[in-house]
Amino acid sequence: MPAILHRRSFLAGLAGTFLGARSALSDTPNLLSSWNDGPARQAILDFVKRVTAENGTDFVPPAARIAVFDNDGTLWAEQPIYFQLAFAVDRVKALAPQHPEWKDKEPFAALLKGDLKALAATGEKGLVDILTVTHAGMTTEEFGKIVTDWLAEAQHPRFHRGYDELAYQPMLELLAYLRANGFKTFIVSGGGVEFMRAFAERTYGIPPEQVVGSSGVVKFEMGADGVPRLVKEARVEFIDDGPGKPVGINRFIGRRPIFAFGNSDGDQQMLQWTAAGQGARFMGLIHHTDADREWAYDRQSHIGKLDKALDEATAKGWTVVDMKNDWNQVFARGP
Amino acid sequence: MPAILHRRSFLAGLAGTFLGARSALSDTPNLLSSWNDGPARQAILDFVKRVTAENGTDFVPPAARIAVFDNDGTLWAEQPIYFQLAFAVDRVKALAPQHPEWKDKEPFAALLKGDLKALAATGEKGLVDILTVTHAGMTTEEFGKIVTDWLAEAQHPRFHRGYDELAYQPMLELLAYLRANGFKTFIVSGGGVEFMRAFAERTYGIPPEQVVGSSGVVKFEMGADGVPRLVKEARVEFIDDGPGKPVGINRFIGRRPIFAFGNSDGDQQMLQWTAAGQGARFMGLIHHTDADREWAYDRQSHIGKLDKALDEATAKGWTVVDMKNDWNQVFARGP
Repeated sequence: MPAILHRRSFLAGLAGTFLGARSALSDTPNLLSSWNDGPARQAILDFVKRVTAENGTDFVPPAARIAVFDNDGTLWAEQPIYFQLAFAVDRVKALAPQHPEWKDKEPFAALLKGDLKALAATGEKGLVDILTVTHAGMTTEEFGKIVTDWLAEAQHPRFHRGYDELAYQPMLELLAYLRANGFKTFIVSGGGVEFMRAFAERTYGIPPEQVVGSSGVVKFEMGADGVPRLVKEARVEFIDDGPGKPVGINRFIGRRPIFAFGNSDGDQQMLQWTAAGQGARFMGLIHHTDADREWAYDRQSHIGKLDKALDEATAKGWTVVDMKNDWNQVFARGP
Repeated sequence: MPAILHRRSFLAGLAGTFLGARSALSDTPNLLSSWNDGPARQAILDFVKRVTAENGTDFVPPAARIAVFDNDGTLWAEQPIYFQLAFAVDRVKALAPQHPEWKDKEPFAALLKGDLKALAATGEKGLVDILTVTHAGMTTEEFGKIVTDWLAEAQHPRFHRGYDELAYQPMLELLAYLRANGFKTFIVSGGGVEFMRAFAERTYGIPPEQVVGSSGVVKFEMGADGVPRLVKEARVEFIDDGPGKPVGINRFIGRRPIFAFGNSDGDQQMLQWTAAGQGARFMGLIHHTDADREWAYDRQSHIGKLDKALDEATAKGWTVVDMKNDWNQVFARGP
């Protein structure tokens, strides 16, 4: 939630809305089988081989095999708007019958009418109001259930399937491959931590305690009934994006990753932080180059802008995945 | 660091300064061998049996076997002052030669002279100044090394051994026993997260990513040399104590523990939060009742005050460990 807030482009993204796992085993022939033979796949295989060879100079003990992944645009798609924003929009619509006053109150009136111009005019205050009614004022457990229920019902406007079915098959294979080689896999994302935890274990095999994300303030309350509650408040606590990502890694994980994957400039500092450690390192970026099967965007995109990080990756020889050429399959269920 | 700040009693504790692993295997006869046969040991064994019996009504899958432990007074001793405060005091002394101005500047002058009355008079501002010079203004990696070096040298004033040798042997056995039964063990402590991470893996077998604690603000900086750094700032970010403990559990772990152990009123909300979940639960408190081998303190103590939580434990039938009677050994190396 707060990460959306942080990204200037949310209204452009919001506007877009209305327009519209197999597991890999180490050392088996079909590991990473959705990856075409090429430099990206080879770089992954080479790196894992180097850090797991017990007598090699680059050996890393399993406890230190920390791998971090951005979520939006890296593990699942992020177009035409961040999926968490799609959730917020759907949630406003679902709540509208209980809020007749929203008919005349911005940003809700514009959102409910689909009046994109008026919605955009509400600016950042409009977004904060939307996030407040959709992400705060309930317990953490109630919120988790709302997200789970939404995921079970909501359909992506282009692919007409559940949002969690838009996880990238090659990345699911990569996660499984790393875990099979002793890595501990983490999400480090600008997305809301409680939003992601609602599906990360089921979708990616990543348990809640290995999800790092943006968060709002949560407060402990003892109810008059003697039942304690954790209540989500409408205040940003932490933005896990850009320079916040190494900070989040330090805070939640407490040691530096040796493997990091992102897809946008918001991941640049995470990749820099990973790269600056001693010993063997892997830094990867997904370049969205496939308008037919997914989307093609980079330097000019409002969502998932990839510009400075792409330059740095090129200059420093980080691995850049060309989605069109490096992946023979994008989603688990075609294309 | 911030937890110390939070506790009103720090100056009383600070004054005190100047006055002065075996592993258990599941289902083996000598598991929990430092625990005397009695209700506390039996309650632990019964609980673990219940939640691990695959066909039982209380079965909990391994992924949900989350166990949380307070640190000070629960996993290691906390007298005569919190060990992290002893670190801060020693650090001021070590830095003093580089700061001749401290001779005339409070709180440093009082601390260096051992003038407890003058030190106490500096109040909370004095403590903040001490924490600022000892816990901020360096990178996270530099801080970790300072703590590690201190632990290798510093001696506890009563027991004349390293502070990390004052971990409780019965609790080390309990941690190992739980892990052998599929539990994931976490620290959830008011202590500084980066302080604890410097020794938690070596001392307790708990990796950095399973340590939840209080924290200061950390900032990402890209150096002119192109090397990124995480710098510790002199601002409190999060106090993982009292009602902050369930909040910290939610933030870092993302699911409710089924097993929680503490020793003071600062653990009460963590125990309440654990107790309020569905299914089998274990809530434990260590009662320091052994002045000969360790210390005896509870309702009136400035450090580790155990008053309201003891009443609640009694009323609700939580397990209260009577250190004197329940433990046949306190530290790994007598008594």
